[in-house]
Amino acid sequence: MRKNFIKENESGKPVVLYGRHAVLAALRNPHRRIGKLVCTSENAAEIRQKFPQVMLEVKLKKDIDKLLPADAVHQGFALYCQPLEQISIEDICRQSEGKENCRVLILDQVTDPQNIGAIVRSCAAFGALALIVQDKNSPQENGAMAKAAAGTLELVPMVRATNLTRAAEILKKHGFWVVGMDGYAKTTIDKMDKNGKLAIVMGSEGAGMRRLVEENCDLTVRLPISDKVESLNVSTAAAIVLYELSKI
Amino acid sequence: MRKNFIKENESGKPVVLYGRHAVLAALRNPHRRIGKLVCTSENAAEIRQKFPQVMLEVKLKKDIDKLLPADAVHQGFALYCQPLEQISIEDICRQSEGKENCRVLILDQVTDPQNIGAIVRSCAAFGALALIVQDKNSPQENGAMAKAAAGTLELVPMVRATNLTRAAEILKKHGFWVVGMDGYAKTTIDKMDKNGKLAIVMGSEGAGMRRLVEENCDLTVRLPISDKVESLNVSTAAAIVLYELSKI
Repeated sequence: MRKNFIKENESGKPVVLYGRHAVLAALRNPHRRIGKLVCTSENAAEIRQKFPQVMLEVKLKKDIDKLLPADAVHQGFALYCQPLEQISIEDICRQSEGKENCRVLILDQVTDPQNIGAIVRSCAAFGALALIVQDKNSPQENGAMAKAAAGTLELVPMVRATNLTRAAEILKKHGFWVVGMDGYAKTTIDKMDKNGKLAIVMGSEGAGMRRLVEENCDLTVRLPISDKVESLNVSTAAAIVLYELSKI
Repeated sequence: MRKNFIKENESGKPVVLYGRHAVLAALRNPHRRIGKLVCTSENAAEIRQKFPQVMLEVKLKKDIDKLLPADAVHQGFALYCQPLEQISIEDICRQSEGKENCRVLILDQVTDPQNIGAIVRSCAAFGALALIVQDKNSPQENGAMAKAAAGTLELVPMVRATNLTRAAEILKKHGFWVVGMDGYAKTTIDKMDKNGKLAIVMGSEGAGMRRLVEENCDLTVRLPISDKVESLNVSTAAAIVLYELSKI
Protein backbone atom coordinates (compact mmCIF):
# COMPACT_ATOMS: atom_id res chain seq x y z
CA MET A 1 0.00 0.00 0.00
CA ARG A 2 2.62 2.52 -1.04
CA LYS A 3 1.80 5.97 -2.24
CA ASN A 4 2.13 5.88 -6.01
CA PHE A 5 0.64 9.21 -6.86
CA ILE A 6 3.53 11.58 -7.08
CA LYS A 7 2.92 14.34 -9.58
CA GLU A 8 5.24 16.28 -11.85
CA ASN A 9 5.16 19.48 -9.90
CA GLU A 10 6.60 19.44 -6.43
CA SER A 11 4.78 21.30 -3.73
CA GLY A 12 5.53 22.30 -0.18
CA LYS A 13 8.69 23.27 1.64
CA PRO A 14 11.15 20.58 2.71
CA VAL A 15 10.37 18.92 6.03
CA VAL A 16 12.67 17.37 8.60
CA LEU A 17 11.55 13.94 9.76
CA TYR A 18 13.07 12.41 12.88
CA GLY A 19 12.92 9.20 14.88
CA ARG A 20 13.93 5.72 13.73
CA HIS A 21 10.57 4.45 12.46
CA ALA A 22 9.60 7.66 10.66
CA VAL A 23 12.99 8.04 8.94
CA LEU A 24 13.50 4.41 7.91
CA ALA A 25 9.95 4.24 6.52
CA ALA A 26 10.55 7.42 4.50
CA LEU A 27 13.80 5.97 3.11
CA ARG A 28 11.96 2.79 2.12
CA ASN A 29 9.19 4.72 0.32
CA PRO A 30 10.15 4.97 -3.38
CA HIS A 31 7.80 7.93 -3.79
CA ARG A 32 9.41 10.06 -1.09
CA ARG A 33 11.87 12.65 -2.43
CA ILE A 34 14.84 12.34 -0.12
CA GLY A 35 17.45 14.99 0.70
CA LYS A 36 20.22 14.65 3.25
CA LEU A 37 20.14 12.33 6.26
CA VAL A 38 21.85 13.56 9.41
CA CYS A 39 22.55 10.77 11.87
CA THR A 40 24.86 9.54 14.61
CA SER A 41 27.82 7.34 13.74
CA GLU A 42 26.11 4.23 15.15
CA ASN A 43 23.11 4.79 12.92
CA ALA A 44 25.33 5.64 9.92
CA ALA A 45 26.65 2.05 9.73
CA GLU A 46 23.12 0.68 9.50
CA ILE A 47 22.08 3.26 6.91
CA ARG A 48 25.15 2.68 4.71
CA GLN A 49 24.28 -1.00 4.58
CA LYS A 50 20.52 -0.69 4.03
CA PHE A 51 20.39 2.49 1.93
CA PRO A 52 23.76 2.91 0.18
CA GLN A 53 22.54 5.76 -2.04
CA VAL A 54 21.45 8.09 0.75
CA MET A 55 23.58 11.18 1.32
CA LEU A 56 24.78 11.06 4.92
CA GLU A 57 26.10 13.59 7.38
CA VAL A 58 27.34 12.17 10.66
CA LYS A 59 26.84 14.34 13.75
CA LEU A 60 26.84 13.89 17.51
CA LYS A 61 23.47 13.43 19.17
CA LYS A 62 23.69 16.83 20.83
CA ASP A 63 24.31 18.50 17.47
CA ILE A 64 21.28 16.74 15.94
CA ASP A 65 19.29 18.10 18.92
CA LYS A 66 20.03 21.60 17.64
CA LEU A 67 18.47 20.92 14.24
CA LEU A 68 15.13 19.91 15.71
CA PRO A 69 12.39 21.18 18.05
CA ALA A 70 13.42 21.14 21.72
CA ASP A 71 11.39 18.08 22.69
CA ALA A 72 12.06 15.97 19.58
CA VAL A 73 12.94 12.35 20.43
CA HIS A 74 15.04 11.81 17.30
CA GLN A 75 16.97 8.64 18.24
CA GLY A 76 19.90 9.91 16.17
CA PHE A 77 18.03 10.36 12.87
CA ALA A 78 17.04 13.61 11.10
CA LEU A 79 16.02 13.40 7.45
CA TYR A 80 15.55 16.38 5.14
CA CYS A 81 12.98 15.53 2.48
CA GLN A 82 10.00 16.79 0.49
CA PRO A 83 6.52 16.34 1.95
CA LEU A 84 4.53 13.61 0.26
CA GLU A 85 2.56 14.61 -2.81
CA GLN A 86 -1.13 15.07 -2.31
CA ILE A 87 -3.87 12.77 -3.48
CA SER A 88 -7.38 13.86 -4.45
CA ILE A 89 -10.71 12.64 -3.14
CA GLU A 90 -11.47 11.41 -6.66
CA ASP A 91 -8.33 9.22 -6.56
CA ILE A 92 -9.57 7.68 -3.31
CA CYS A 93 -13.00 7.05 -4.80
CA ARG A 94 -11.32 5.32 -7.73
CA GLN A 95 -9.30 3.13 -5.34
CA SER A 96 -12.50 2.17 -3.52
CA GLU A 97 -14.14 0.86 -6.69
CA GLY A 98 -14.86 -2.85 -6.60
CA LYS A 99 -14.18 -3.01 -2.85
CA GLU A 100 -17.06 -4.38 -0.83
CA ASN A 101 -16.04 -2.92 2.50
CA CYS A 102 -13.78 0.03 2.95
CA ARG A 103 -13.33 2.91 5.35
CA VAL A 104 -12.07 6.45 5.11
CA LEU A 105 -11.74 8.81 8.06
CA ILE A 106 -12.60 12.52 7.78
CA LEU A 107 -11.18 14.88 10.42
CA ASP A 108 -12.94 18.18 10.94
CA GLN A 109 -10.91 20.84 12.77
CA VAL A 110 -8.33 18.52 14.29
CA THR A 111 -5.25 20.70 14.49
CA ASP A 112 -2.68 18.92 16.63
CA PRO A 113 0.02 17.26 14.46
CA GLN A 114 0.65 14.53 17.03
CA ASN A 115 -3.03 13.60 17.13
CA ILE A 116 -3.09 13.47 13.33
CA GLY A 117 0.05 11.32 13.27
CA ALA A 118 -1.40 8.92 15.84
CA ILE A 119 -4.61 8.70 13.80
CA VAL A 120 -2.62 7.89 10.65
CA ARG A 121 -0.99 5.04 12.58
CA SER A 122 -4.42 3.65 13.54
CA CYS A 123 -5.61 4.04 9.93
CA ALA A 124 -2.67 1.85 8.87
CA ALA A 125 -3.23 -0.66 11.68
CA PHE A 126 -6.89 -1.17 10.82
CA GLY A 127 -6.66 -0.86 7.04
CA ALA A 128 -8.41 2.45 6.35
CA LEU A 129 -8.14 3.51 2.71
CA ALA A 130 -7.37 7.18 3.42
CA LEU A 131 -7.44 10.04 5.88
CA ILE A 132 -9.19 13.23 4.78
CA VAL A 133 -8.49 16.58 6.43
CA GLN A 134 -9.52 20.13 5.69
CA ASP A 135 -6.64 21.86 3.95
CA LYS A 136 -7.04 25.27 5.55
CA ASN A 137 -7.21 24.23 9.21
CA SER A 138 -4.90 21.23 9.25
CA PRO A 139 -1.17 21.33 9.90
CA GLN A 140 1.14 20.48 7.02
CA GLU A 141 3.17 17.30 7.22
CA ASN A 142 5.92 17.77 9.79
CA GLY A 143 8.35 15.94 12.01
CA ALA A 144 6.04 15.66 15.03
CA MET A 145 3.26 14.23 12.88
CA ALA A 146 5.60 11.71 11.25
CA LYS A 147 7.05 10.68 14.62
CA ALA A 148 3.58 10.01 16.06
CA ALA A 149 2.70 8.06 12.91
CA ALA A 150 5.76 5.83 13.49
CA GLY A 151 6.44 5.29 9.79
CA THR A 152 2.82 4.96 8.64
CA LEU A 153 2.68 8.41 7.01
CA GLU A 154 4.31 6.59 4.07
CA LEU A 155 1.47 4.04 3.94
CA VAL A 156 -1.79 5.94 4.39
CA PRO A 157 -2.90 8.38 1.66
CA MET A 158 -3.90 11.76 3.09
CA VAL A 159 -6.32 14.00 1.21
CA ARG A 160 -6.23 17.72 1.95
CA ALA A 161 -9.73 18.78 0.90
CA THR A 162 -10.68 22.41 0.38
CA ASN A 163 -14.22 21.73 1.53
CA LEU A 164 -15.20 18.75 3.67
CA THR A 165 -18.91 19.00 2.81
CA ARG A 166 -18.02 18.76 -0.87
CA ALA A 167 -15.65 15.83 -0.14
CA ALA A 168 -18.48 14.02 1.68
CA GLU A 169 -20.79 14.59 -1.30
CA ILE A 170 -18.26 13.07 -3.69
CA LEU A 171 -17.81 10.07 -1.40
CA LYS A 172 -21.59 9.59 -1.24
CA LYS A 173 -21.81 9.59 -5.04
CA HIS A 174 -19.30 6.76 -5.01
CA GLY A 175 -21.36 4.63 -2.66
CA PHE A 176 -19.99 5.68 0.74
CA TRP A 177 -22.21 6.12 3.78
CA VAL A 178 -21.15 9.16 5.77
CA VAL A 179 -21.20 8.44 9.51
CA GLY A 180 -20.64 11.21 12.05
CA MET A 181 -19.19 10.54 15.50
CA ASP A 182 -21.25 12.54 17.97
CA GLY A 183 -21.26 12.12 21.75
CA TYR A 184 -25.00 12.83 21.82
CA ALA A 185 -26.01 10.25 19.19
CA LYS A 186 -28.53 7.59 20.23
CA THR A 187 -26.83 4.59 18.65
CA THR A 188 -23.46 3.27 19.76
CA ILE A 189 -21.01 2.34 17.05
CA ASP A 190 -21.01 -1.39 17.84
CA LYS A 191 -24.74 -1.52 17.06
CA MET A 192 -24.59 0.01 13.57
CA ASP A 193 -24.47 -1.92 10.30
CA LYS A 194 -20.77 -2.10 9.49
CA ASN A 195 -21.06 -3.46 5.97
CA GLY A 196 -20.20 -1.46 2.89
CA LYS A 197 -18.18 1.67 2.28
CA LEU A 198 -18.07 4.01 5.26
CA ALA A 199 -16.69 7.52 5.65
CA ILE A 200 -16.41 8.37 9.35
CA VAL A 201 -16.42 12.02 10.35
CA MET A 202 -14.77 13.09 13.61
CA GLY A 203 -14.64 16.61 14.99
CA SER A 204 -12.15 18.19 17.36
CA GLU A 205 -12.24 17.22 21.00
CA GLY A 206 -13.57 20.55 22.19
CA ALA A 207 -16.03 21.63 19.57
CA GLY A 208 -16.95 18.42 17.75
CA MET A 209 -18.08 18.49 14.14
CA ARG A 210 -19.23 21.75 12.66
CA ARG A 211 -22.94 21.89 11.93
CA LEU A 212 -22.51 22.10 8.17
CA VAL A 213 -20.43 18.97 8.24
CA GLU A 214 -22.81 17.18 10.60
CA GLU A 215 -25.81 17.94 8.40
CA ASN A 216 -24.14 15.96 5.66
CA CYS A 217 -23.96 12.75 7.68
CA ASP A 218 -26.27 9.85 6.80
CA LEU A 219 -26.25 8.83 10.45
CA THR A 220 -24.49 9.66 13.70
CA VAL A 221 -23.19 7.23 16.29
CA ARG A 222 -21.25 7.48 19.54
CA LEU A 223 -18.73 5.49 21.53
CA PRO A 224 -20.21 3.81 24.63
CA ILE A 225 -18.24 5.67 27.32
CA SER A 226 -19.01 6.21 31.00
CA ASP A 227 -21.03 9.30 31.83
CA LYS A 228 -18.33 10.21 34.33
CA VAL A 229 -16.08 11.09 31.39
CA GLU A 230 -16.91 13.90 29.01
CA SER A 231 -15.00 12.66 26.00
CA LEU A 232 -11.94 10.80 24.79
CA ASN A 233 -8.91 12.27 23.10
CA VAL A 234 -9.67 12.39 19.36
CA SER A 235 -6.84 10.02 18.45
CA THR A 236 -7.99 7.52 21.08
CA ALA A 237 -11.57 7.74 19.82
CA ALA A 238 -10.42 7.34 16.21
CA ALA A 239 -8.45 4.21 17.09
CA ILE A 240 -11.46 2.59 18.75
CA VAL A 241 -13.73 3.52 15.84
CA LEU A 242 -11.30 2.09 13.26
CA TYR A 243 -10.86 -1.06 15.36
CA GLU A 244 -14.60 -1.57 15.74
CA LEU A 245 -15.22 -1.04 12.03
CA SER A 246 -12.43 -3.44 11.06
CA LYS A 247 -14.38 -6.28 12.66
CA ILE A 248 -16.56 -7.51 9.79
CA MET B 1 -16.27 6.74 41.96
CA ARG B 2 -14.21 9.14 44.05
CA LYS B 3 -11.01 8.17 45.75
CA ASN B 4 -11.85 7.61 49.37
CA PHE B 5 -8.67 6.09 50.59
CA ILE B 6 -6.60 8.96 51.92
CA LYS B 7 -4.39 7.90 54.80
CA GLU B 8 -3.11 9.72 57.84
CA ASN B 9 0.44 10.12 56.66
CA GLU B 10 1.06 12.27 53.64
CA SER B 11 3.57 11.12 51.10
CA GLY B 12 5.23 12.63 48.05
CA LYS B 13 6.34 16.10 47.14
CA PRO B 14 3.75 18.65 46.04
CA VAL B 15 2.85 18.54 42.36
CA VAL B 16 1.70 21.32 40.05
CA LEU B 17 -1.32 20.37 37.98
CA TYR B 18 -2.30 22.48 34.98
CA GLY B 19 -5.01 22.65 32.35
CA ARG B 20 -8.70 23.32 32.89
CA HIS B 21 -9.97 19.73 33.18
CA ALA B 22 -7.14 18.49 35.39
CA VAL B 23 -7.35 21.44 37.78
CA LEU B 24 -11.15 21.63 38.09
CA ALA B 25 -11.35 17.87 38.70
CA ALA B 26 -8.70 18.11 41.42
CA LEU B 27 -10.62 20.97 43.08
CA ARG B 28 -13.80 18.87 42.98
CA ASN B 29 -12.09 15.84 44.55
CA PRO B 30 -12.67 15.99 48.34
CA HIS B 31 -9.70 13.69 48.90
CA ARG B 32 -7.18 15.89 47.11
CA ARG B 33 -5.11 18.10 49.43
CA ILE B 34 -5.12 21.48 47.75
CA GLY B 35 -2.55 24.26 48.03
CA LYS B 36 -2.56 27.49 46.07
CA LEU B 37 -4.21 27.99 42.69
CA VAL B 38 -2.47 30.36 40.29
CA CYS B 39 -4.76 31.48 37.47
CA THR B 40 -5.55 34.26 35.04
CA SER B 41 -8.09 36.93 36.00
CA GLU B 42 -10.71 35.48 33.64
CA ASN B 43 -10.41 32.09 35.31
CA ALA B 44 -10.36 33.65 38.78
CA ALA B 45 -13.97 34.81 38.46
CA GLU B 46 -15.12 31.26 37.68
CA ILE B 47 -13.06 29.78 40.51
CA ARG B 48 -14.30 32.31 43.09
CA GLN B 49 -17.85 31.34 42.24
CA LYS B 50 -17.40 27.57 42.11
CA PHE B 51 -14.73 27.09 44.77
CA PRO B 52 -14.92 30.02 47.21
CA GLN B 53 -12.49 28.43 49.68
CA VAL B 54 -9.56 28.02 47.32
CA MET B 55 -6.58 30.29 47.84
CA LEU B 56 -6.04 32.22 44.62
CA GLU B 57 -3.16 34.07 43.08
CA VAL B 58 -3.96 35.94 39.88
CA LYS B 59 -1.18 36.17 37.29
CA LEU B 60 -0.86 36.93 33.60
CA LYS B 61 -0.74 33.98 31.24
CA LYS B 62 2.90 34.63 30.41
CA ASP B 63 3.81 34.56 34.10
CA ILE B 64 2.00 31.25 34.59
CA ASP B 65 4.07 29.95 31.64
CA LYS B 66 7.18 30.51 33.74
CA LEU B 67 5.92 28.27 36.56
CA LEU B 68 5.46 25.27 34.27
CA PRO B 69 7.38 23.11 31.76
CA ALA B 70 7.99 24.89 28.44
CA ASP B 71 5.35 23.01 26.45
CA ALA B 72 2.62 22.98 29.12
CA VAL B 73 -0.80 23.94 27.71
CA HIS B 74 -2.11 25.31 31.00
CA GLN B 75 -5.14 27.31 29.82
CA GLY B 76 -4.54 29.76 32.65
CA PHE B 77 -4.64 27.26 35.53
CA ALA B 78 -1.76 26.01 37.73
CA LEU B 79 -2.64 24.23 40.96
CA TYR B 80 -0.16 23.37 43.72
CA CYS B 81 -1.34 20.28 45.57
CA GLN B 82 -0.32 16.98 47.14
CA PRO B 83 -0.21 13.87 44.96
CA LEU B 84 -3.09 11.49 45.60
CA GLU B 85 -2.61 8.94 48.33
CA GLN B 86 -1.79 5.44 47.23
CA ILE B 87 -4.10 2.46 47.31
CA SER B 88 -2.99 -1.14 47.76
CA ILE B 89 -3.68 -4.15 45.57
CA GLU B 90 -5.55 -5.66 48.52
CA ASP B 91 -7.87 -2.63 48.60
CA ILE B 92 -8.62 -3.19 44.90
CA CYS B 93 -9.32 -6.88 45.51
CA ARG B 94 -11.72 -5.90 48.29
CA GLN B 95 -13.49 -3.48 45.94
CA SER B 96 -13.85 -6.23 43.36
CA GLU B 97 -15.67 -8.55 45.77
CA GLY B 98 -19.21 -9.32 44.74
CA LYS B 99 -18.66 -7.86 41.28
CA GLU B 100 -19.40 -10.29 38.47
CA ASN B 101 -17.37 -8.55 35.79
CA CYS B 102 -14.56 -6.18 36.46
CA ARG B 103 -11.30 -5.14 34.86
CA VAL B 104 -7.97 -3.88 36.10
CA LEU B 105 -5.08 -2.88 33.85
CA ILE B 106 -1.47 -3.68 34.73
CA LEU B 107 1.26 -1.68 32.99
CA ASP B 108 4.74 -3.22 32.84
CA GLN B 109 7.56 -0.77 32.04
CA VAL B 110 5.42 2.02 30.62
CA THR B 111 7.38 5.12 31.53
CA ASP B 112 5.90 8.04 29.62
CA PRO B 113 3.66 10.17 31.88
CA GLN B 114 1.46 11.27 28.97
CA ASN B 115 0.83 7.67 27.95
CA ILE B 116 -0.06 6.80 31.55
CA GLY B 117 -2.39 9.82 31.79
CA ALA B 118 -4.10 8.88 28.52
CA ILE B 119 -4.52 5.30 29.79
CA VAL B 120 -6.09 6.56 33.02
CA ARG B 121 -8.60 8.48 30.90
CA SER B 122 -9.51 5.31 29.01
CA CYS B 123 -9.80 3.38 32.30
CA ALA B 124 -12.34 5.97 33.44
CA ALA B 125 -14.18 5.97 30.11
CA PHE B 126 -14.60 2.19 30.09
CA GLY B 127 -15.08 1.64 33.81
CA ALA B 128 -11.88 -0.14 34.82
CA LEU B 129 -11.59 -0.62 38.57
CA ALA B 130 -7.92 0.37 38.83
CA LEU B 131 -4.62 0.89 37.07
CA ILE B 132 -1.62 -0.98 38.45
CA VAL B 133 1.94 0.15 37.71
CA GLN B 134 5.35 -0.92 38.96
CA ASP B 135 6.48 1.56 41.56
CA LYS B 136 10.17 1.59 40.66
CA ASN B 137 9.88 2.17 36.92
CA SER B 138 6.82 4.37 36.71
CA PRO B 139 6.80 8.15 36.86
CA GLN B 140 5.23 9.78 39.89
CA GLU B 141 2.03 11.73 39.45
CA ASN B 142 2.82 14.96 37.64
CA GLY B 143 1.31 17.76 35.60
CA ALA B 144 1.82 16.14 32.20
CA MET B 145 0.16 12.93 33.40
CA ALA B 146 -2.79 14.80 34.90
CA LYS B 147 -3.20 16.91 31.75
CA ALA B 148 -3.34 13.81 29.54
CA ALA B 149 -5.81 12.23 31.97
CA ALA B 150 -8.08 15.30 31.55
CA GLY B 151 -9.42 15.17 35.11
CA THR B 152 -9.71 11.38 35.42
CA LEU B 153 -6.67 10.98 37.67
CA GLU B 154 -9.15 11.90 40.42
CA LEU B 155 -11.47 9.04 39.45
CA VAL B 156 -9.31 5.99 38.78
CA PRO B 157 -7.41 4.40 41.66
CA MET B 158 -3.75 3.81 40.80
CA VAL B 159 -1.79 1.09 42.59
CA ARG B 160 1.99 1.43 42.68
CA ALA B 161 3.06 -2.18 43.21
CA THR B 162 6.58 -3.14 44.28
CA ASN B 163 6.39 -6.37 42.32
CA LEU B 164 3.96 -6.95 39.46
CA THR B 165 4.29 -10.73 39.59
CA ARG B 166 3.24 -10.65 43.22
CA ALA B 167 0.38 -8.27 42.38
CA ALA B 168 -0.83 -10.69 39.69
CA GLU B 169 -0.71 -13.56 42.19
CA ILE B 170 -2.85 -11.64 44.67
CA LEU B 171 -5.36 -10.78 41.94
CA LYS B 172 -5.53 -14.45 40.91
CA LYS B 173 -6.28 -15.48 44.48
CA HIS B 174 -9.20 -13.09 44.37
CA GLY B 175 -10.68 -14.66 41.26
CA PHE B 176 -9.05 -12.57 38.51
CA TRP B 177 -7.86 -14.09 35.25
CA VAL B 178 -4.56 -12.56 34.20
CA VAL B 179 -4.51 -11.83 30.48
CA GLY B 180 -1.33 -10.67 28.74
CA MET B 181 -1.38 -8.54 25.59
CA ASP B 182 1.22 -9.98 23.23
CA GLY B 183 1.58 -9.20 19.53
CA TYR B 184 2.53 -12.83 18.86
CA ALA B 185 -0.45 -14.43 20.63
CA LYS B 186 -2.66 -16.73 18.56
CA THR B 187 -6.02 -15.48 19.77
CA THR B 188 -7.33 -11.98 19.11
CA ILE B 189 -8.95 -10.18 22.02
CA ASP B 190 -12.42 -10.12 20.45
CA LYS B 191 -12.46 -13.94 20.41
CA MET B 192 -11.70 -14.47 24.11
CA ASP B 193 -14.25 -15.10 26.85
CA LYS B 194 -14.82 -11.66 28.33
CA ASN B 195 -16.84 -12.72 31.36
CA GLY B 196 -15.57 -12.49 34.88
CA LYS B 197 -12.78 -10.58 36.57
CA LEU B 198 -9.92 -9.78 34.22
CA ALA B 199 -6.50 -8.25 34.88
CA ILE B 200 -4.95 -7.18 31.58
CA VAL B 201 -1.16 -6.89 31.39
CA MET B 202 0.41 -4.57 28.84
CA GLY B 203 4.13 -4.05 28.28
CA SER B 204 5.97 -1.08 26.86
CA GLU B 205 5.76 -0.40 23.15
CA GLY B 206 9.34 -1.37 22.43
CA ALA B 207 10.03 -4.32 24.68
CA GLY B 208 6.60 -5.70 25.55
CA MET B 209 6.02 -7.55 28.79
CA ARG B 210 8.97 -8.90 30.67
CA ARG B 211 9.23 -12.68 30.66
CA LEU B 212 8.65 -13.07 34.37
CA VAL B 213 5.46 -11.09 34.06
CA GLU B 214 4.35 -12.96 30.95
CA GLU B 215 4.86 -16.33 32.61
CA ASN B 216 2.25 -15.33 35.15
CA CYS B 217 -0.48 -14.80 32.58
CA ASP B 218 -3.31 -17.32 32.34
CA LEU B 219 -3.60 -16.55 28.64
CA THR B 220 -2.23 -14.12 26.06
CA VAL B 221 -4.18 -12.37 23.33
CA ARG B 222 -3.40 -9.75 20.68
CA LEU B 223 -5.13 -6.94 18.86
CA PRO B 224 -6.03 -7.77 15.25
CA ILE B 225 -3.81 -5.23 13.46
CA SER B 226 -2.48 -5.18 9.90
CA ASP B 227 0.85 -6.92 9.36
CA LYS B 228 2.07 -3.70 7.70
CA VAL B 229 2.16 -2.11 11.16
CA GLU B 230 4.47 -3.36 13.87
CA SER B 231 2.53 -2.15 16.87
CA LEU B 232 0.27 0.53 18.24
CA ASN B 233 1.15 3.17 20.78
CA VAL B 234 0.56 1.63 24.22
CA SER B 235 -2.13 4.15 25.16
CA THR B 236 -3.97 3.52 21.89
CA ALA B 237 -3.76 -0.23 22.42
CA ALA B 238 -4.97 0.10 26.01
CA ALA B 239 -7.98 2.15 24.91
CA ILE B 240 -9.01 -0.49 22.37
CA VAL B 241 -8.55 -3.29 24.89
CA LEU B 242 -10.62 -1.52 27.55
CA TYR B 243 -13.30 -0.71 24.96
CA GLU B 244 -13.47 -4.30 23.73
CA LEU B 245 -13.66 -5.68 27.28
CA SER B 246 -16.38 -3.21 28.27
CA LYS B 247 -18.72 -4.85 25.75
CA ILE B 248 -20.35 -7.60 27.76
